[in-house]
Amino acid sequence: MSHRVSDEVAARATSEEITGSGAPSRRHHHDGDSLPYIHKVGAPPKQNLVREIKEAVKETFFHDNPLGHFKDQSGRRKLVLGLQAVFPILEWGRGYNLSKFKGDLVSGLTIASLCIPQDIAYAKLANLQPQFGLYSSFVCPLVYAFMGSSRDIAIGPVAVVSLLLGTMLTDEISDYTKHEYLRLAFTATFFAGITQMTLGVLRLGFLIDFLSHAAIVGFMGGAAITIALQQLKGLLGIKNFTKKTDIVSVMHSVWSNVHHGWNWQTIVIGMAFLAYLFASKFMAKKNKKLFWVSALAPLVSVILSTFFVYITRADKKGVAIVKHLEKGVNPSSASEIYFSGKYLGPGIRIGVIAGMIALTEAVAIGRTFAAMKDYALDGNKEMVAMGTMNIIGSLTSCYVATGSFSRSAVNYMAGCQTAVSNIVMSIVVLLTLELITPLFKYTPNAVLASIIIAAVSGLVDIEAAILLWKIDKFDFLACIGAFFGVIFKNVEIGLLIAVAISFAKILLQVTRPRTALLGKLPGTTLYRNIQQYPSASQIPGMVIIRVDSAIYFSNSNYIKERILRWLQDEDAQRKEHSTQIQYLVVEMSPVTDIDTSGIHAFEELHKSLQKREIQLVLANPGPIVMEKLHASKLAELIGEDNIFLTVADAVATFGSKAEP
Amino acid sequence: MSHRVSDEVAARATSEEITGSGAPSRRHHHDGDSLPYIHKVGAPPKQNLVREIKEAVKETFFHDNPLGHFKDQSGRRKLVLGLQAVFPILEWGRGYNLSKFKGDLVSGLTIASLCIPQDIAYAKLANLQPQFGLYSSFVCPLVYAFMGSSRDIAIGPVAVVSLLLGTMLTDEISDYTKHEYLRLAFTATFFAGITQMTLGVLRLGFLIDFLSHAAIVGFMGGAAITIALQQLKGLLGIKNFTKKTDIVSVMHSVWSNVHHGWNWQTIVIGMAFLAYLFASKFMAKKNKKLFWVSALAPLVSVILSTFFVYITRADKKGVAIVKHLEKGVNPSSASEIYFSGKYLGPGIRIGVIAGMIALTEAVAIGRTFAAMKDYALDGNKEMVAMGTMNIIGSLTSCYVATGSFSRSAVNYMAGCQTAVSNIVMSIVVLLTLELITPLFKYTPNAVLASIIIAAVSGLVDIEAAILLWKIDKFDFLACIGAFFGVIFKNVEIGLLIAVAISFAKILLQVTRPRTALLGKLPGTTLYRNIQQYPSASQIPGMVIIRVDSAIYFSNSNYIKERILRWLQDEDAQRKEHSTQIQYLVVEMSPVTDIDTSGIHAFEELHKSLQKREIQLVLANPGPIVMEKLHASKLAELIGEDNIFLTVADAVATFGSKAEP
Repeated sequence: MSHRVSDEVAARATSEEITGSGAPSRRHHHDGDSLPYIHKVGAPPKQNLVREIKEAVKETFFHDNPLGHFKDQSGRRKLVLGLQAVFPILEWGRGYNLSKFKGDLVSGLTIASLCIPQDIAYAKLANLQPQFGLYSSFVCPLVYAFMGSSRDIAIGPVAVVSLLLGTMLTDEISDYTKHEYLRLAFTATFFAGITQMTLGVLRLGFLIDFLSHAAIVGFMGGAAITIALQQLKGLLGIKNFTKKTDIVSVMHSVWSNVHHGWNWQTIVIGMAFLAYLFASKFMAKKNKKLFWVSALAPLVSVILSTFFVYITRADKKGVAIVKHLEKGVNPSSASEIYFSGKYLGPGIRIGVIAGMIALTEAVAIGRTFAAMKDYALDGNKEMVAMGTMNIIGSLTSCYVATGSFSRSAVNYMAGCQTAVSNIVMSIVVLLTLELITPLFKYTPNAVLASIIIAAVSGLVDIEAAILLWKIDKFDFLACIGAFFGVIFKNVEIGLLIAVAISFAKILLQVTRPRTALLGKLPGTTLYRNIQQYPSASQIPGMVIIRVDSAIYFSNSNYIKERILRWLQDEDAQRKEHSTQIQYLVVEMSPVTDIDTSGIHAFEELHKSLQKREIQLVLANPGPIVMEKLHASKLAELIGEDNIFLTVADAVATFGSKAEP
Repeated sequence: MSHRVSDEVAARATSEEITGSGAPSRRHHHDGDSLPYIHKVGAPPKQNLVREIKEAVKETFFHDNPLGHFKDQSGRRKLVLGLQAVFPILEWGRGYNLSKFKGDLVSGLTIASLCIPQDIAYAKLANLQPQFGLYSSFVCPLVYAFMGSSRDIAIGPVAVVSLLLGTMLTDEISDYTKHEYLRLAFTATFFAGITQMTLGVLRLGFLIDFLSHAAIVGFMGGAAITIALQQLKGLLGIKNFTKKTDIVSVMHSVWSNVHHGWNWQTIVIGMAFLAYLFASKFMAKKNKKLFWVSALAPLVSVILSTFFVYITRADKKGVAIVKHLEKGVNPSSASEIYFSGKYLGPGIRIGVIAGMIALTEAVAIGRTFAAMKDYALDGNKEMVAMGTMNIIGSLTSCYVATGSFSRSAVNYMAGCQTAVSNIVMSIVVLLTLELITPLFKYTPNAVLASIIIAAVSGLVDIEAAILLWKIDKFDFLACIGAFFGVIFKNVEIGLLIAVAISFAKILLQVTRPRTALLGKLPGTTLYRNIQQYPSASQIPGMVIIRVDSAIYFSNSNYIKERILRWLQDEDAQRKEHSTQIQYLVVEMSPVTDIDTSGIHAFEELHKSLQKREIQLVLANPGPIVMEKLHASKLAELIGEDNIFLTVADAVATFGSKAEP
């Protein structure tokens, strides 16, 4: 069985291997016609410029066709649709019923019991007084319920954003007891909301995709460990604790306080409840139905420990307690936001970063649960909802809120149906603020620390990191870079490393695309990478190379040089068998686009090949590439006859001429 | 003729359209066996990690295999090869002969005659005294001749880099008569050399590819016009000229001087020689053999005008002349470079920018001529040569030198054979410096201005801009952005715009890759974009989509959503014909890589499809994708049976089951 076509026409009629197989010729073969029937490479009708730009803009920013259902509707209907677009509650609210409410009520109460102790604890991470955590769990979920499109997300303050905010705010104003600190926090929250809303309105939501999954895994893991380390202060009852967040400073601080700074009563309380929290978490993991044991554990811990401290007056023995917790509903903070002055700049900067991170978390959560229940989630609409929520939040004494991983999971498992569970939670928080906040006065800080540690422990996802290692080493690098950046320096550096590595990956992708040497799979007319299919055989006199990327200025020279190197290597190898290479076939199927630099590279390639008396042949260029080949006259230069629909066609046509 | 397979086996034996056509089954068909023979998708043997990383690093930084010929050589031979690698002259010098020298002598003399007047003029663009231009044309070409690998490039000061340097240096030290200005120029030259050398040694040469061809066309055109406008000062004899380079300031300066600032004697001289220079250029363009008329015109202009001014003493009538030109060879400038102090920072910044631009120009020239004569040019080695040349230059009173477009073209046309033509030019410049520089004292500035205008006029490449418009609108945007940035603001802003647009294009490429709906070409088993091939028909019950890019974190969500939208659109359309979609085939041929985010997106896609009772089917995943599908267990999730070698195989297998 030979691997080449001895004569173009005869081969198709006689060779067992080729006859009836050259796919394009088959029909004619069966019609008794042995002339090869070769499809011409199609070029789409030339679009006019305006249309072309319109299409490009649409695909870039409006690929989800957000206004599609507005088409062909009456004015009144359009208004209703418009309102429904901004407030999805108007849409799903109409189908709301009692059975759904049952699910939402149970899940709402569950996440409320979880969020109240967490809110108090997280506010401390942001160096804010505890009531601000509760404020954020009252207003923000309410706003989201009306505007958001996720059914499972649980809104409120979260650990990582609280830490990020606390770190960045303290960098600006190191004394966080100052009123300026609080004002800067509101300012940052306001601009976080503005950032989120802007991204949504301008449909730039894809920008958050640049923080890759891998980077988030590393960043979250690092942040969780940093947060847990910070809790050693509360858990061990240390008074003089470092303000830095890196692991070296924290461990130094912990050990230097070992002799006179630790408080054994605090340690006993903290460790006891930490053990209880982890035990309940473990139970819930073993038996999914017991998730409520874990969900209620923080509230139980707070109630028990508060009661215990109140009875024993352990606070007199050095056990630090919450002490002060403002009663009542959110006061207005509209006049507190800096719209000018020296804190405006830092406020914007912190707001943009915190807003982006909060959004990344919320969108990741939203997507996960939307995929699990298979409903559509409009990323840009989500951003607008988040933005509005944080803007309104910043005016009502809230700090940056977003979707919480752990509470959303509990919400989902408790059987939430719609965003009404957030409304239920919000009402419970309101009642708490109005009625029982003074009771939290005796809650020991050690228990709050335990609650935080237990909550963030879920963020360290070792399995995900192992999977990253298995699947993609570069992703693992981004993950581990972000992780070490966070724990050894701070959250900002970690973020920076993660983004830098992600960008390096993109740069690598666009500068060093892959190319492959193709061979013919035995018994087919398919040409495949000979590395993947070792049985694939090469055609004498021809070198077939596939380019696996759009050809742009960033890689055109590399591609040209790489193709010439393939040729050189093959030439050297085949010289030993004294065959001469006469055709270079470039399989263009994966080449979706080519720019002027790419065209130039091919012109140069063609020129180089001419000197070596090798004919350049193109196989299956796509529509855009065809258009540009014609526009640049490169198609004429190469020769229309040398552009084929498939590699098989090229081989059928030239295989005979390429005999040694 | 039906477009679906009514029964998998029977179809292959009976249907006129399918029989003997399902490429993978052909062989068996001809063997009389009608069972489909389907190739399994190959997965390459798993590589170990070290090897994998080694391969990646090699492909990224050493894709040209620079140490390949060192392999299996003796120590002594390696030393020789190493020396030859650093000094290519040792390699090509051995085959040098008299006939080559003839070509080099003629071309060297020609470019020398061209460079001497240009050097004097360009030095003025950089706000330096004229002798520094000549110094740079003496030392730099000499160094390059020993280390460079291009045979056609002509080394020396060039207009655009001189302008860029002049602009940036004046931004730092506005009074360019100060000695600090000269010192900063040497400092910048030194760091330009360091930058170039570093890029070459670290094999980061691909970074200059990020300045796309389109951006360069616009930037060069803008710079040429800016330079020409600057020459109005010399050409019109204006004394009080603006220091800004933007077109508005310059035109304002020109018109405000119209009544008392213009000098008619200067204008007459300038215009006369400008006409002569353009006429000679025109002649050379009409008849390539007369290129020497154009090449000698600048020298002739200088000699004639100098003689004329000397005779008529026109300088007494307000015709500005060179006046002062230091005689003698380059003095040392090693002690003039700032290695500390407040000018170190600006020196580095200016050096890096000027070095990159100089490199871009040199590499573009080198590549052009290497492609024309078909010899290999090692980009990284070129950078080391350029870097060394500028470092040595900065120590010997030269400023940034690089390859000149116009002089290289003349060099090529005059028949240069090797870099020896640069040595000839260098010697002529040396003789000029030692013997005849005082004669240039009476050269009128207006003639130098004419020479510059004539030289840079070739940089405005309107044809290239038109071609950009025709081929790629985005490239045209980058071009025009750079152009307007340069002429309306300054060279730095122009550069910034060009780089920003180029990056935006890359971002767009990696965030919004193309996808296409495929259909079957009639009479084949080929599946192609139905937009490109309107005759392609879809398979009932199946939607076939091709993804045209590697799937990374930056686009994984978009791809997932886009695929679902294709499905939705098709579903809506086909509902009218009451057919149910049961299979979604994703053609993966162009998907060269997938990362963890991509794997997650496919998991989510699979989950969404399951809810809709649609089976996900993959066709022709590449080696790396296959490896990752297995590592992530996604292959198991989708089912190995649902991964095919070709779309045709998938259709053959499922086409029958997918009947409405």
